[in-house]
Amino acid sequence: MTLYLIGLGLGTEQDITLRGLEAVKKADKIYLENYTSLLQCSVADLENYYGKKIIISDREKSEHAQEIVTAAKNDSIAFLVIGDPFSATTHIELYKLAQEQKIPVEVINNASVLTAIGITGLQLYKFGRTTSIPFLQDHPNLETPYHVYRNNLSLDLHTLFLLDLDPKNNHFMSVKEAISTLENIESRLHQNLITPQTKAIGVARVGSKDCLIKFGTMSDIKQIDFGPPPHCLIIPGKLHFAEEEMLTTYY
Amino acid sequence: MTLYLIGLGLGTEQDITLRGLEAVKKADKIYLENYTSLLQCSVADLENYYGKKIIISDREKSEHAQEIVTAAKNDSIAFLVIGDPFSATTHIELYKLAQEQKIPVEVINNASVLTAIGITGLQLYKFGRTTSIPFLQDHPNLETPYHVYRNNLSLDLHTLFLLDLDPKNNHFMSVKEAISTLENIESRLHQNLITPQTKAIGVARVGSKDCLIKFGTMSDIKQIDFGPPPHCLIIPGKLHFAEEEMLTTYY
Repeated sequence: MTLYLIGLGLGTEQDITLRGLEAVKKADKIYLENYTSLLQCSVADLENYYGKKIIISDREKSEHAQEIVTAAKNDSIAFLVIGDPFSATTHIELYKLAQEQKIPVEVINNASVLTAIGITGLQLYKFGRTTSIPFLQDHPNLETPYHVYRNNLSLDLHTLFLLDLDPKNNHFMSVKEAISTLENIESRLHQNLITPQTKAIGVARVGSKDCLIKFGTMSDIKQIDFGPPPHCLIIPGKLHFAEEEMLTTYY
Repeated sequence: MTLYLIGLGLGTEQDITLRGLEAVKKADKIYLENYTSLLQCSVADLENYYGKKIIISDREKSEHAQEIVTAAKNDSIAFLVIGDPFSATTHIELYKLAQEQKIPVEVINNASVLTAIGITGLQLYKFGRTTSIPFLQDHPNLETPYHVYRNNLSLDLHTLFLLDLDPKNNHFMSVKEAISTLENIESRLHQNLITPQTKAIGVARVGSKDCLIKFGTMSDIKQIDFGPPPHCLIIPGKLHFAEEEMLTTYY
C-alpha cells in the first residue's frame, strides 16, 4: 500500500497539516517516533484527536525500520515524526528502505526548529552549520559544537545548537546546561570563544504558542528559567542592523 | 485583535496546518504574500478551500507592512506566507512592527524548502550557508553564490542555492539557468569550482507530491527538463556513505 512519512510540526496535535491528517485517517497502523524531539502535547492527545491508537517507535525500532516497511506492503502505514520528517537521519533510512522495496512513500512535510528559529529575527540564510550538544557525561571529551561554532563565526555566521534529550529518563538539556557544556569545552581548549560576555539567544518551545526567547550575555541567559523543554541555543555571528533591532525586543 | 502569520507549506491548499486553517476561518481579512515563493495550487484554489477572499500582497505591500498592522488593531488579520513565515526577511519586519505597536501576533509555522530538501538524503546539519542565485541580467557582476559555495566547500559542507523568481513576468529560474549562471561566474573568476564534472542535485517542486530530484554531473543535470517551478539546486560537499547511497537512487 503506502508508507506516509508525516511531520507533526512543533506544537500540539493541531499542528499537523490537513494532508497529514487525511493520511493518518486512511492509515491502518500509526507509528510515532519518540526519540529525536518533543511535542507540546501528549501521545494521548494525539490519539484522541485522530480517534486511533498510536504505536510508539523508540530509537531502536526507528533504526530497524524493516518492520514498518514490511507492514506497508499490505497496509497503509503512517509514520509520524515531530517537526519535519527529515529532521533526523533515521527517517531517511526508512524512506530509502521503502524505495528499495518498491513501497510507495509519500512525504508530508511540516515545520522544523531549523526554520522556526527565524522568529528570533536572525536571517535564516546567515546561519552556518547546525550542531548538537550531547550530554557531557556521555561525551566527556566533547569538542565538536565548539569547533562548528568557531568555523561559523570565522565566516560571520550564526550557530544553532540543538540540545540533547533522553525521553526515557525524562532528561531534556536546558539552555543553562548547554551553556555550562560550552564553558566546559572552553576551559579545556582556551580559545576565548565562550566568555560570560558572549551574546547568546536562549529559545524554548519554538513553534508553539508559549515560545520563550531571550537575548543577552551568556552570564545573563544562564540565570533564566526557560521552563518546559525543548530548548535550543543560538550564538549569533555578525549581526545585521535589522537583526540587532529585532533581538533587542528579546532582552 | 490579532495578526496571524501563517505558513502554507510547499504544496497545495491542503498543506496548511489545522491551527492555520482555524486562524484563517476566524480572520476578517486574509492577505497572501505573492513574491518570495510559489505554491502548486492557484489563489482561486485557496479561496475556494477557505470560502473567503484573499488580498494579494505584492513585494511593495509586504515591505510597507503598516497597512496590515493597522488593520490588525481592530480586526483579526491572517497573513499567509508560502513555506514558513520567516523564510523571507520581509515577514520578520511585519512581526516586529506588530510587536512594537502591541498588536498580538501568532506565528503558525509550516514546512520550508530549507528542510524539505532533506528528502535528497543529504543531512541537514551538513549544509553550510544557504545562498540565492538572482537573475544575471539584473546582476551582471554577480559573485556571491560562488563565494558562499567556495566557503561551504572548504568546510566540506553542502550548499543549497535558492533560485530567483519574478512572478509578475511569469519568470522562474530553472535548474539549467542556475547552472549557466554559476558557469558564467566561473568564467570570470577561474577558480575551477564549477566544471562540467561537478556533481549537483537538481530539485523541482520539493514538498509537493510530484517533487523531482536528479543527481548527476552539471553537464548531465543541465540536459534535464525539471518541469514546472519552483526549482532549486544543491552542490554537495563531502558525502557521507549513507548520503551517497541515497543520492544514487536519484541518478
